Amino acid sequence: MTDGFSFAVKARDGSARTGAIATPRGVVRTPAFMPVGTGATVKAMFPEDVAAAGADIILANTYHLMLRPGAERIAKLGGLHKFMHWDKPILTDSGGYQVMSLAKLRRIDEEGVIFQSHIDGATVALTPERAIEVQCLLGADIQMVLDECTPYPATRKEASASLDLSLRWAERSKRAFAGSAAPGQALFGIVQGSVYPDLRELSANALVEIGFDGYAIGGLAVGEGQGAMLDMTAIVASILPQDRPRYLMGVGTPEDLLLSIARGIDMFDCVMPTRSGRHCQAFTWGGRLNLRNARYADDPAPLDLESACPAAHYERAYLHHLVKSGETLGAMLLSYANVQFYQELMARAREAIEEARFTSFTEEMRQRYAKASNELDDI
Amino acid sequence: MTDGFSFAVKARDGSARTGAIATPRGVVRTPAFMPVGTGATVKAMFPEDVAAAGADIILANTYHLMLRPGAERIAKLGGLHKFMHWDKPILTDSGGYQVMSLAKLRRIDEEGVIFQSHIDGATVALTPERAIEVQCLLGADIQMVLDECTPYPATRKEASASLDLSLRWAERSKRAFAGSAAPGQALFGIVQGSVYPDLRELSANALVEIGFDGYAIGGLAVGEGQGAMLDMTAIVASILPQDRPRYLMGVGTPEDLLLSIARGIDMFDCVMPTRSGRHCQAFTWGGRLNLRNARYADDPAPLDLESACPAAHYERAYLHHLVKSGETLGAMLLSYANVQFYQELMARAREAIEEARFTSFTEEMRQRYAKASNELDDI
Repeated sequence: MTDGFSFAVKARDGSARTGAIATPRGVVRTPAFMPVGTGATVKAMFPEDVAAAGADIILANTYHLMLRPGAERIAKLGGLHKFMHWDKPILTDSGGYQVMSLAKLRRIDEEGVIFQSHIDGATVALTPERAIEVQCLLGADIQMVLDECTPYPATRKEASASLDLSLRWAERSKRAFAGSAAPGQALFGIVQGSVYPDLRELSANALVEIGFDGYAIGGLAVGEGQGAMLDMTAIVASILPQDRPRYLMGVGTPEDLLLSIARGIDMFDCVMPTRSGRHCQAFTWGGRLNLRNARYADDPAPLDLESACPAAHYERAYLHHLVKSGETLGAMLLSYANVQFYQELMARAREAIEEARFTSFTEEMRQRYAKASNELDDI
Repeated sequence: MTDGFSFAVKARDGSARTGAIATPRGVVRTPAFMPVGTGATVKAMFPEDVAAAGADIILANTYHLMLRPGAERIAKLGGLHKFMHWDKPILTDSGGYQVMSLAKLRRIDEEGVIFQSHIDGATVALTPERAIEVQCLLGADIQMVLDECTPYPATRKEASASLDLSLRWAERSKRAFAGSAAPGQALFGIVQGSVYPDLRELSANALVEIGFDGYAIGGLAVGEGQGAMLDMTAIVASILPQDRPRYLMGVGTPEDLLLSIARGIDMFDCVMPTRSGRHCQAFTWGGRLNLRNARYADDPAPLDLESACPAAHYERAYLHHLVKSGETLGAMLLSYANVQFYQELMARAREAIEEARFTSFTEEMRQRYAKASNELDDI
């Protein structure tokens, strides 16, 4: 493993585990949820509140930052941490996923991908080497190989060809990383293979053969359904080495997180807490709420007294008023409350694993959210 | 003066003065600038940051709150302070100004004004008595009489008739207030008279005759120009009693504030710091900046190191990136920095008055902003 970067498993409960990723910028307690700071900001939150919410690490999007304000510019200004006032670890994706989902006029070949910026239409090239260069310019603590996120659905043949390309890119990424990364920076490989168990196994084994500091599972949560997602996750996690962190990309709901942790996942990222916060939706220890609902207009109850987040102590009637009026403070408070809820969920999950009661904790949370679906959930 | 509410002048420098307004919810140091919390929120700011910025008091808009979420609802929820998490004093306007500027299909007669809500078109009546009732339901510490904000321009005859109506409404407001206000709540009269010195004198004298806890000057900063505004302000301030606070409504730029303080004004409110913050503009000790300007794209300088505001310590290049990207954090940081700048400006003004150097302080600030117009100001 890269010098200055390490991962140690602390406790196990079935396939679930807690651990610690040590980086030069601090320790990440796992299972960890990474709030998404797409454009060098976790949307509608002060960076100190992201830390206060309990986040040890955030994710930033290479695609967005290379287009605006530009990786070379951020490097000249002292790197992404300084730029966005966040001194803890940052994981950057490789940009591949956003090229597929946001950019226009893509052309993929062996060398890489050429696309048009969704911001100004400029033609931009992204290769495995450039993706690493950009992530090094940003100063990312954990970097991702460029891969092709296999679209869903894909035939077995398509998934196989896509996976092979991603493996060749993974090798090139590793070589580029070896030549340019700073001490303590880490590189993760990404397992693809769509919903085909044998392809997932092939991808995982091949990546382990190349050797990475950690392994992500990509190409899930793209429409295949929760069952298939969990099946693929379990298969891949059983192959990946025990002494490396495992990261399930782009997942998910609180239930998705717990069920994936039960299958051996250590890290997650998702826009759900912040995006929901901007769309009037709150995650609480009592369930999910839509604050636009008229039932909250006269509700003097705090959003969530079980949360330690100051934003969760505002009254529902006030939050309802703010979101109905389109006031920015509504998005600020709900984003903060949601991000902290996700962190508190991870903290309780770690505690439950260490006390060997993760299954009952998961069941308890499932019941809370099922109850919420009856009584509160109006999303 | 109302029991539990008092005003004491502390120091004088020419016509400028410092003082303290004591209310049951705390002391307001004057000259004071009140951030505007139109819809029960100072836009894009956490209430604790409004306090941290140095604000002793905020303004809330009766018109907006009576329409949404409704004054009776706020009262049932425990009053405006509890509702919006602000435990220091709140001044509410009477709603009259917004009826004129925002509502449709107004009909004004002796009784009051009937209008259609700009939110849902509902027909709403506002009388002097209802304006006080609403402000008491909100629990405002300082309340304003309902007046007709004389439009600009107005003929002498129009201004005179409008002023007479406002005086009759002021008497009714005072009677209603006497019957319903809580201990320590205060009522201010509002001087009108457009740009006619004799009408301004007449209005001020008549209001003093009725007797209020403080006096506002209304109907200025509506297009008459800075010269006329300052002339009217000086005339009115010279008539108003020395032992009552004087409040110039809806003003203004940093220069407007200092020149009005020099004429004896103690209180101000204006949306300028928050609205500017949402429109990429910053007030700093070095002058005014428009963060959208491309010159800041690579500027590693903090927004304003002379300010103690944490938001003002973010780099200009980062703020430029945020506002160019339409990120909420840009509005959050600039609103916070601007609100704190206005508070720091008042603090320095108070210090300068107490040290009998207010004229030179005003001149120094004028030069800073003139320099800024050359070198920085690109608004």
